[in-house]
Amino acid sequence: MNKTIILKSRPEGTPQLSDFELTDEKMPEVMQGEILLKTKYVSVDPYLRGRMSNADSYVPPFELNKPISSGIVAEVVESKNDKFKKGDFVSDRLDWKEYQISTGKDLQKLDPSIQPLSVYLGVVGMTGMTAYTGLTQIGKPKAGETIVVSGAAGAVGSIVGQIGKILGCHVVGIAGSDEKVEMLKSKFGFDAGINYYTTKDMNKAIAETCPKGVDIYFDNVGGPISDAVHRNINQFGRIVVCGAISMYNATEMPTGPRVEGFLIKRSALMQGFIVSDFVDKFPEGAKQLGQWLKEGKLTYEETVIEGFDAIPEAFIGLFTGKNKGKMIVKV
Amino acid sequence: MNKTIILKSRPEGTPQLSDFELTDEKMPEVMQGEILLKTKYVSVDPYLRGRMSNADSYVPPFELNKPISSGIVAEVVESKNDKFKKGDFVSDRLDWKEYQISTGKDLQKLDPSIQPLSVYLGVVGMTGMTAYTGLTQIGKPKAGETIVVSGAAGAVGSIVGQIGKILGCHVVGIAGSDEKVEMLKSKFGFDAGINYYTTKDMNKAIAETCPKGVDIYFDNVGGPISDAVHRNINQFGRIVVCGAISMYNATEMPTGPRVEGFLIKRSALMQGFIVSDFVDKFPEGAKQLGQWLKEGKLTYEETVIEGFDAIPEAFIGLFTGKNKGKMIVKV
Repeated sequence: MNKTIILKSRPEGTPQLSDFELTDEKMPEVMQGEILLKTKYVSVDPYLRGRMSNADSYVPPFELNKPISSGIVAEVVESKNDKFKKGDFVSDRLDWKEYQISTGKDLQKLDPSIQPLSVYLGVVGMTGMTAYTGLTQIGKPKAGETIVVSGAAGAVGSIVGQIGKILGCHVVGIAGSDEKVEMLKSKFGFDAGINYYTTKDMNKAIAETCPKGVDIYFDNVGGPISDAVHRNINQFGRIVVCGAISMYNATEMPTGPRVEGFLIKRSALMQGFIVSDFVDKFPEGAKQLGQWLKEGKLTYEETVIEGFDAIPEAFIGLFTGKNKGKMIVKV
Repeated sequence: MNKTIILKSRPEGTPQLSDFELTDEKMPEVMQGEILLKTKYVSVDPYLRGRMSNADSYVPPFELNKPISSGIVAEVVESKNDKFKKGDFVSDRLDWKEYQISTGKDLQKLDPSIQPLSVYLGVVGMTGMTAYTGLTQIGKPKAGETIVVSGAAGAVGSIVGQIGKILGCHVVGIAGSDEKVEMLKSKFGFDAGINYYTTKDMNKAIAETCPKGVDIYFDNVGGPISDAVHRNINQFGRIVVCGAISMYNATEMPTGPRVEGFLIKRSALMQGFIVSDFVDKFPEGAKQLGQWLKEGKLTYEETVIEGFDAIPEAFIGLFTGKNKGKMIVKV
């Protein structure tokens, strides 16, 4: 049989295991021109939370009682399509199923000499591309500037910080444990890290670790952590609004200090984006990220959870800090 | 004697007449290379409120017991400088004094064929330049897009709307009285206007007057009016944060709905600015605004208060909606 995970109910607040259901579907039959894919790695990402709600958005929400989809690396286990052969590895946005059919359209064929193949969901996949495009297209860093990254130990944040260092910036990361802060510095080369759980005065901690103020804030979290960074933004500062994980599970409209005042005072910019806004930069980004990875300038952290059934649990873990770096389910 | 208005105390909340003092200074003596200026028109502007506070800003605050300064049109009444002769008219940021000395440095010499000369403080001065640069450099309007302007009957807002129409956009203005809303449509050519005092559901009113959503929001006010516009922002919308008059007199940090959520959802941008950020666009802007004015494509509204002593009262009136268009004191 063919295990499948469907959205059983739309989460209220933090997603619960009961919002998901593991079902068994029958094995699909491969028709001429099609291939059969076996799921190997599944990417779980905070933004999926948004698609589980029925909220107004230009990306349609997941449908109830239908499979959820996300970035997946799969192996071709049967092929009736000349362009693919058994044993090929591919990646795309695919359903949370053990096996599924594809016509091959839009599939990215992977180079298996780069291992583990899960990097195609992370540092050289959409995660890396999110960091690369958001930082370069909105943040526009110049050497010598200061970048603060929130959610810095997360998948996107850890790559943003490393790119910042490659580009000659002073980089400070904010994360939720001493262990993560230590990793930011020792593994990812951040200049400083701040543990927001144990730091009483975030405003002061940012001022101290950013003696020349904050030119770019790459924001993955929103909320009070961001308020403290905003207070340290320099003139002509750029705030890259990539994620707001602190707000994704909110059931009422989150409120906070109004931003218009400091935006005017500092002639500062806040811009939201999703990675597909910069699709024309993907070829450049993929080439650059792959090159940095091969040169050893870019490293990554993965939290790998084993087993198809564990996908919902891995996803929920994103909201309780269970992951260091990219959260991956290995099937 | 020489009347002068000094900042007596830093306003708490809405400025009061008692925050200002009218003093008499002795007439200055004109030295070689200098000219004596007699104040003719004084510009009072909401942004001056910020400089009356001691708050952290990269523009230094006004000093206590020293004259306040703003945009002024003055007449040369005595000249010991070859570049100026008696009867010339000039404009610059000058002190709130009846008479003052200048070396001539930075003074803009005015063409008296354009009348009244107060337009050099308004539609073809810094007010017009603020509208022009904010709208073109941040808003980047394309023909067919929808622009919403708050504080639309104000000096900057009324020019923004007219430029929007010249550039082929659908333009909706928000103002605080039926009379102002009527003026937006009949005098300034806005497609629609909303009276925020009498409109119960601003969200709905914006949706109805902007059937294709809001591509550009030129924000002069901040606060709940802006929250309603934010809810109608289109994908890739641009929010030009020009002013936040609703918050200038706040004594506590104003709070409101957090913006990160819709910025991400809509891939939208919010950017604050002051006119001097775009100093390299001033020649282009001055030429364009002057041309539109001569062609009759740009009109303006002035509220003229008479008498030097009335400057503080005129300034305070900005915060209670006393002005239609540019607030000017004629001396």
